[in-house]
Amino acid sequence: MKFVLKGNIIYATEKKKIITRKKSYVVCEDGICKGVFKELPIEYKQFKIIDYKDALIMPGFIDLHLHAPQYAFIGTKMDLELIEWLNNIAFKEESRYKSLKYAKRAYENFTHSLKNSVTTRACIFATRHVLSSIELMSQLEKSKLITYVGKVNMDQNGLEIIDEKNAEQSIEDTLLWLKKVNTFENTKPILTPRFIPSCSVDLLNGLKNIQSKFNLPVQSHLSENKKEINWVKELFPTSSFYGKVYDNFNLFGYNHQKHKTFKTIMAHCVHSSEKEIDLLKKNKVFVAHCPTSNINLNSGIAPIKKYLKLGLNVGLGSDVAAGNNLSMFEVIKCAIQVSKYYKHFIDANVESLSFEEAFYLATLGGGKFFNKVGTFKKGYEFDAVVINDKKLGLNNNISIRKRIERAIYLNLDNFALIDKYVRGEQINLYD
Amino acid sequence: MKFVLKGNIIYATEKKKIITRKKSYVVCEDGICKGVFKELPIEYKQFKIIDYKDALIMPGFIDLHLHAPQYAFIGTKMDLELIEWLNNIAFKEESRYKSLKYAKRAYENFTHSLKNSVTTRACIFATRHVLSSIELMSQLEKSKLITYVGKVNMDQNGLEIIDEKNAEQSIEDTLLWLKKVNTFENTKPILTPRFIPSCSVDLLNGLKNIQSKFNLPVQSHLSENKKEINWVKELFPTSSFYGKVYDNFNLFGYNHQKHKTFKTIMAHCVHSSEKEIDLLKKNKVFVAHCPTSNINLNSGIAPIKKYLKLGLNVGLGSDVAAGNNLSMFEVIKCAIQVSKYYKHFIDANVESLSFEEAFYLATLGGGKFFNKVGTFKKGYEFDAVVINDKKLGLNNNISIRKRIERAIYLNLDNFALIDKYVRGEQINLYD
Repeated sequence: MKFVLKGNIIYATEKKKIITRKKSYVVCEDGICKGVFKELPIEYKQFKIIDYKDALIMPGFIDLHLHAPQYAFIGTKMDLELIEWLNNIAFKEESRYKSLKYAKRAYENFTHSLKNSVTTRACIFATRHVLSSIELMSQLEKSKLITYVGKVNMDQNGLEIIDEKNAEQSIEDTLLWLKKVNTFENTKPILTPRFIPSCSVDLLNGLKNIQSKFNLPVQSHLSENKKEINWVKELFPTSSFYGKVYDNFNLFGYNHQKHKTFKTIMAHCVHSSEKEIDLLKKNKVFVAHCPTSNINLNSGIAPIKKYLKLGLNVGLGSDVAAGNNLSMFEVIKCAIQVSKYYKHFIDANVESLSFEEAFYLATLGGGKFFNKVGTFKKGYEFDAVVINDKKLGLNNNISIRKRIERAIYLNLDNFALIDKYVRGEQINLYD
Repeated sequence: MKFVLKGNIIYATEKKKIITRKKSYVVCEDGICKGVFKELPIEYKQFKIIDYKDALIMPGFIDLHLHAPQYAFIGTKMDLELIEWLNNIAFKEESRYKSLKYAKRAYENFTHSLKNSVTTRACIFATRHVLSSIELMSQLEKSKLITYVGKVNMDQNGLEIIDEKNAEQSIEDTLLWLKKVNTFENTKPILTPRFIPSCSVDLLNGLKNIQSKFNLPVQSHLSENKKEINWVKELFPTSSFYGKVYDNFNLFGYNHQKHKTFKTIMAHCVHSSEKEIDLLKKNKVFVAHCPTSNINLNSGIAPIKKYLKLGLNVGLGSDVAAGNNLSMFEVIKCAIQVSKYYKHFIDANVESLSFEEAFYLATLGGGKFFNKVGTFKKGYEFDAVVINDKKLGLNNNISIRKRIERAIYLNLDNFALIDKYVRGEQINLYD
């Protein structure tokens, strides 16, 4: 567990700053980064050195939001908007995970792909099914990736084939699931109400109790699509905004009884009102920005530049399979691209995301959800990916900063990922 | 030159229709497609059969617009809009091609990448330099890809380091270039005024004469960016629209003296007026839709669905390096994605592009520029690419139609391209 990687090193230290170090050393001891060095300090001279020559070494990428069961139809069925897409595609596919046999096979495909991507950590939705969710977690545990996984709660407004019988059943299943997964080391449970329209008041109250009892983190969806937001307004007419409904049930980063914060991720936040943004900030909720999903489901464009300026916690999510690719390289590129259209079509005064900012979001921005993760600063957990961009006949006589930008814009991840480390452990790619 | 490919076959026959044939045969004789067959007809039984098992076989992809010299900085420097990007980035890079030595090396990288992409035919801008342009064409000729390449004409409003001395010099160089490249078989010259602001009236008149004398096709840029359009209005205040300026110099698909049409490509057409659209249609000009470029340079979104409905000739262009990737898979995906934002932000009554339409644009739509190209219908020239989507742990028990959609949405081209044929000749990938 003591080793040194040598190569061209790139990492973000803050939202507008990427550090690049040519032919340098990054040191790992017991899963913790000891820093980046031009000359290797004497105390690390006996560590094993892995020399990646001219390759690019960077922190692992963090995927704050994705649906594992939807990987089975990734890259297909992209012609609908959110509610219609859920009812016609996502829910039907997810109902198949009632079969543990189906789940086992499908989750093998998913886990294989995630393991061989540039992602080292992820926050994942399973389905509402207990056994399948445990199966997913047990496969992920073996992959050595670090993840939060949620058995989904949904007891209304979906389809008969996928909704849970009632709130009691949903809560009972959740407690059973929690009991079965508490021994995993890399794979932790996260409370996962699907979204407000899927949850009865009884279910939300039950989840409130579970959150409080187990002090669990929470993940869900927020203000993704205008039709969805109007629906929430109809369901909870007295709530002043969508996020307030979660907050009323202590599912929005803050337990009002215990006066205690807990970690929460809300995916999308495309159309959040000023009040909702204030509460996201106050409760330190993480916004999972999912640009590929937002463009594919035509949800709109989230004001990420504004969220960054306001100091919100923001990371990126692939949102597979509304997002069309597990690749965080694709998500980074798309985050920059859609931010340009934000400027073009929504507010000409808002600058687009810089490459530095998007790289930060995909590493340190999302990494904060996992505590000290997402950079090569001393004391951070050691996640790294190594990219060989030599193929394709590209000219490598350009700066390291440009080479990583190009690797991302060209989607070189599957093509060029040669090694990967999570919390100091090497992952066996394509085994 | 007589052979049969066996595998899962996909091709567009019209703009809304993709044909898929599982485990079938596509026959090539002397560079011409003889059709697709479930059972191989007796007359082809002696042809050599190459069995690609469960792989996907489809027509080669057509890139109607890209800048070869800009490949050297692909995937970097994406933070400006058109005019600023030209002045600060593109023109400076292109000025380096004054050196034949530099051009040779850079064009080797470019040609290597294009050869190993899913593109079989392309329409390419070189730079204004004669020797470098000949070098590019000579390299492309050896690659066996089929291309049109233009030495660029530009005698004003750029930078001193890149503009040609004057119209006379530009015309003289163009005539010299044409003389030197008339023996190539796969690589044909195309007249290439950069765009209206780059060309003096004398130059446009000179190009008009050359077009008429040699009956050359033409490529240029049109109505890409609002600032550019206003600039053209200032330069030619009496022209009722941008395209009319080209047309006044017989560079817009129609020679008014000879009453004769010729092939023309105009890249972008993002902000074309109704009159401009009418003339594009009347003169059968090809619109090269470049969605990755349009999002990266924040130019807007072209109304491609409308152009298709009106019956314009439309294909896709990667527009490297404002487009961030040579991959036509990336361009297809992005065409669908930006068409959704067209609906969201510009006109809610216009449906987004379907996958079928985007696939058509990238094969048969652009293929028409090369005559009978872009499909496996009998009598068409035989271009094909073979994709092995077995990697990545994906479930292949889905329809062929979904597998090709997924391969495109996942950008599997570099990762999964295993063979490529152009006009019946096999390309040696990665040699």
